[in-house]
Amino acid sequence: MLNSVLVHSPATLSNLGCGFDVFGLALAAPYDTIRIRRTAEPGVRIQHLDGYNLPTDPAHNVAGVAILSLLAEVPEQVGFDVEIIKGIKPGSGVGSSAASAAGAVVGANALLGNRFTKMQLVDFAMAGEMVASGARHADNIAPAIFGGFTVVRALEPALDILALPAPPLWVAVVHPQIEVKTSDSRKVLPAAVPLGLAVRQWANVAGLVAGFLTADYDLIGRSMEDYIVEPARLPLIPGLAEARKRAMAVGSIGGGISGSGPSIFMLNKSEAIAQAVGTAMGSVFAELGIEFNTYVGPVATEGAKVVSEA
Amino acid sequence: MLNSVLVHSPATLSNLGCGFDVFGLALAAPYDTIRIRRTAEPGVRIQHLDGYNLPTDPAHNVAGVAILSLLAEVPEQVGFDVEIIKGIKPGSGVGSSAASAAGAVVGANALLGNRFTKMQLVDFAMAGEMVASGARHADNIAPAIFGGFTVVRALEPALDILALPAPPLWVAVVHPQIEVKTSDSRKVLPAAVPLGLAVRQWANVAGLVAGFLTADYDLIGRSMEDYIVEPARLPLIPGLAEARKRAMAVGSIGGGISGSGPSIFMLNKSEAIAQAVGTAMGSVFAELGIEFNTYVGPVATEGAKVVSEA
Repeated sequence: MLNSVLVHSPATLSNLGCGFDVFGLALAAPYDTIRIRRTAEPGVRIQHLDGYNLPTDPAHNVAGVAILSLLAEVPEQVGFDVEIIKGIKPGSGVGSSAASAAGAVVGANALLGNRFTKMQLVDFAMAGEMVASGARHADNIAPAIFGGFTVVRALEPALDILALPAPPLWVAVVHPQIEVKTSDSRKVLPAAVPLGLAVRQWANVAGLVAGFLTADYDLIGRSMEDYIVEPARLPLIPGLAEARKRAMAVGSIGGGISGSGPSIFMLNKSEAIAQAVGTAMGSVFAELGIEFNTYVGPVATEGAKVVSEA
Repeated sequence: MLNSVLVHSPATLSNLGCGFDVFGLALAAPYDTIRIRRTAEPGVRIQHLDGYNLPTDPAHNVAGVAILSLLAEVPEQVGFDVEIIKGIKPGSGVGSSAASAAGAVVGANALLGNRFTKMQLVDFAMAGEMVASGARHADNIAPAIFGGFTVVRALEPALDILALPAPPLWVAVVHPQIEVKTSDSRKVLPAAVPLGLAVRQWANVAGLVAGFLTADYDLIGRSMEDYIVEPARLPLIPGLAEARKRAMAVGSIGGGISGSGPSIFMLNKSEAIAQAVGTAMGSVFAELGIEFNTYVGPVATEGAKVVSEA
């Protein structure tokens, strides 16, 4: 029987422009690294080997809550020691909490003989996401578990997640060091949407799915436009419009706010373009005097996975 | 040079449940039959060889307006004599006006050496649709021109229509003989939609596109659910809920209101199921004492087309 596994769990983009609360995409980098050891002692013990001062009480830690949710479905006496090294900066808008929650349940599941399906793992990890954001949502959890391009079609009455293929894509993400709380970025959203605008949005949602499934880069690009959420959040992220403009000028397909921000993502056809796009976006924040990090990497075809066992 | 063509132009479903104003599907039957003759005399002359008392003044006839819109882009002196036999009953909600407009421009284009693209033909035919419904929309025109499954991704700034493959599907349509005016069925629509409901709707839109492109019948079925438009129109169509219930009981995938109604469509995996579904739906209207017509046929992979030339 396995005693210990090391898991890598990826950063993820959610929304992808038009698909608020529905679309997700897994990134090859950055990722969280999670060591999980099976123990005879029941319960979960969390240790953070990073400098972010995240809570280690398992009832308040996203990985802890996720594993406790999984353990509620396990009849035998078992527990886990969990060490987390955050490779994904909390609050950056690329699914930091989702990565820890997803990686934790993937590791625990491996130590239990992989008895749960990916859909069940999403369900467990969503309990962790609830602690981080106050809402039970799967748009980052789904790609963190399944990899690639995901659609959260329904949460109720049953969780229904579509794991769809993505054509080769290179993603450039710029994370400006400004704080945008998920709760604040939810507050600016309209309670209701004019029907005509909703129609334009779901026309783009249809276009984006078709673009991914037919590997039509132009269609992906023009379908990402978000008529509803981005206009509301634009004031929260200085530099967004200019960063996208410069990204498009060097050949990006398109992009927007990653999740609830403040990170900005752009999709690209090649690594070379993605590097140029990262540089172009960074120049905007350098000029604004805002510190920033840049990540460039391909879409991850796999979600959180065990990279070594003992 | 061709002098005359005979065109068949198909009935179409629009909306397909969740995809209000965006999705369309072409049917093999019923269809309009249109004879178009090229004339040296400019302008358009319309003759209806059916009993529906539709206007024959080309400025008020959908086919006439569509051809006049096309002729505005033709430099040479040319005109057309048009004879229309409506196979599609006006007001049934399966794209009657769109079929006449689409067939007319496809025929005129053939007589002009096919100089216009399908996207241009949609644009011309939309002028005809404007006469019929007062709105410039393409959700029936697009499948009537392209065939198969279509997505109207955008009308502005440029018309953007996606013609996507559909898996083999058999459609059962029941047309209860009750009048639902397009204008009335638009009046009952909400001006605005709660954001959460819009999200659920576009999650289904994503699911439906994925279902068509991956030939996943179950996904198509569960994604068609319409949270916004059907609830508002349900009171306009007595028998709808019961008709769907009986259709599902005999194996249908799913369905809903065709366009603005009153026709009800159900998608099915086989002709045998579609026949049973048509019978099951018809039984509801028989019991209600409402006259009805039933159409059963496959999805048409082609749109309006020339079937003979002279």
